[in-house]
Amino acid sequence: MIHVYFAAPDAYWAAYREPLRRALDQSGLTYTLSPDRDDPANVDYIVFAPGGPVSDFTPFTRAKAVLGLWAGVESIVGNKTLNIPLARMVDRGLSEGMREWVTGHVLRHHLGMDTHIHGQDGIWREDSVPPLARNRTVGILGLGALGQTCAMALAALNFRVKGWSRNAKNIPGITCHSGEDGLNTVLSAAEILVLLLPQTSATRYIINAQSLARMPKGAVIINPGRGPLIDDQALIAALNTGQLSHATLDVFDVEPLPAEHPFWAHDRVTVTPHIASQTRADTASEMIAENIKRCETGEPLMHIVDRTAGY
Amino acid sequence: MIHVYFAAPDAYWAAYREPLRRALDQSGLTYTLSPDRDDPANVDYIVFAPGGPVSDFTPFTRAKAVLGLWAGVESIVGNKTLNIPLARMVDRGLSEGMREWVTGHVLRHHLGMDTHIHGQDGIWREDSVPPLARNRTVGILGLGALGQTCAMALAALNFRVKGWSRNAKNIPGITCHSGEDGLNTVLSAAEILVLLLPQTSATRYIINAQSLARMPKGAVIINPGRGPLIDDQALIAALNTGQLSHATLDVFDVEPLPAEHPFWAHDRVTVTPHIASQTRADTASEMIAENIKRCETGEPLMHIVDRTAGY
Repeated sequence: MIHVYFAAPDAYWAAYREPLRRALDQSGLTYTLSPDRDDPANVDYIVFAPGGPVSDFTPFTRAKAVLGLWAGVESIVGNKTLNIPLARMVDRGLSEGMREWVTGHVLRHHLGMDTHIHGQDGIWREDSVPPLARNRTVGILGLGALGQTCAMALAALNFRVKGWSRNAKNIPGITCHSGEDGLNTVLSAAEILVLLLPQTSATRYIINAQSLARMPKGAVIINPGRGPLIDDQALIAALNTGQLSHATLDVFDVEPLPAEHPFWAHDRVTVTPHIASQTRADTASEMIAENIKRCETGEPLMHIVDRTAGY
Repeated sequence: MIHVYFAAPDAYWAAYREPLRRALDQSGLTYTLSPDRDDPANVDYIVFAPGGPVSDFTPFTRAKAVLGLWAGVESIVGNKTLNIPLARMVDRGLSEGMREWVTGHVLRHHLGMDTHIHGQDGIWREDSVPPLARNRTVGILGLGALGQTCAMALAALNFRVKGWSRNAKNIPGITCHSGEDGLNTVLSAAEILVLLLPQTSATRYIINAQSLARMPKGAVIINPGRGPLIDDQALIAALNTGQLSHATLDVFDVEPLPAEHPFWAHDRVTVTPHIASQTRADTASEMIAENIKRCETGEPLMHIVDRTAGY
């Protein structure tokens, strides 16, 4: 009998209760599943989301793994009481949603849609024919599961995709760069730059006055990654000078983005309310059940977090 | 020696002169290329665009084919003096541009982007998470070269794509329908409907009060095909009742769309100025040169027009 403890804010239980039971049933495991904290020493697996009841993992002496419900693990990765494997959520719904949002907003900026969405003024702008994607360079910072799926979808539409990651990667159809020089190569070529890096001490403010200055004049930044990747003041300055023509931002240092934040009023900024990608209960539950099954049968966990790297 | 007569409006010559020479040179043919009408009886091939110097093809007694610069041939297909093969333009640039425009606008409506593009009002709309594409049905009327490439790009992003064409087709990954019943099946399922039909007597006003009433409430219509596919008054009525939530239109009965046309002022209509796809001189020139080469070596012309069907 496996005991699964659902340690997430109350609202999650309503959403996950049925999908998670369904997925665990299908996995053929014998289990209990509960959001109630009985004897921590009996818990085998902890399903975790930030803001829930657990911050000290010490009492869970028998637990084999913590299974996060989120892709970003910055709120837990530094927790000194956590000494068992931690898996990030990389669910199908999450990556599909991200791919759709990123492909959509890249195409929006590529095609110059806003001119027409805003400009219903009776003027027939014949000169607004966009170039072909094969002549447009898109940079993607971060080539994890989400970055890769976005890069491949954009490459399938013929965009010239240049990706960057901390460690060298090799992805078919994508020009991959790494290291400091590689970052500069991608920045200086990217007419549209998508941020999909994890939030670590090394990526904080990776988009700053210096990196923005390296980009082609009039470039666009799209951030569905993490708010602290961007130095907001430097971004606003670059938008004001025209160095950047637009920023479409889905994530922020503080969320919800306060109503008085200058992003809302800036006519070169589009704010979306952290909707680029959300974990979907049904697909995420299948991932959790599969990971528990893997652990029980001695297979390696999927999407295990490298605690030194921070993601 | 092959004589190619460039019979298109003057502005085209400036754009096509160099690309077409380059493409013909590369084809290895011995040729002359000119926009001047010398002796029509000497002309072997006529490169044609509407609005140019030729409306009577009778004097071109030796000509082997007319090679159109446009995908739509409604202005020439009924010409009684034309008794030699007519090829439509299906150039790589045309289909790529169309695929990008259609994929972009489908994703725009799928993601509900306009809410965020317009709504920079400080309100964090958390409930605006879109469904996944796998739960969204897109209909495509018209499965020619352009319809197919759009259908396949959307299917690659997981959209449930239902296509319709006059004659039955079979395209991997696409549910294909044909005939009157098939049309109703597609209309009644399509949350987003893309029009890529040719303009013929059978497709005129195919989108009318009756067909609009069959669509799911709140559906979106995207028309990068031909203006007369839609009965404008019926479309506006459906937008006003909320039967349709939006129409994004790139083509119109009269172009440029007159400034006083109600589409401009309608807040559920987006007008784009016939930019979804334009023939690009370099890729189109390669197609023309390849077709001439084929004809000279006894191979069948590509993209030959069926004059009875009208496209």
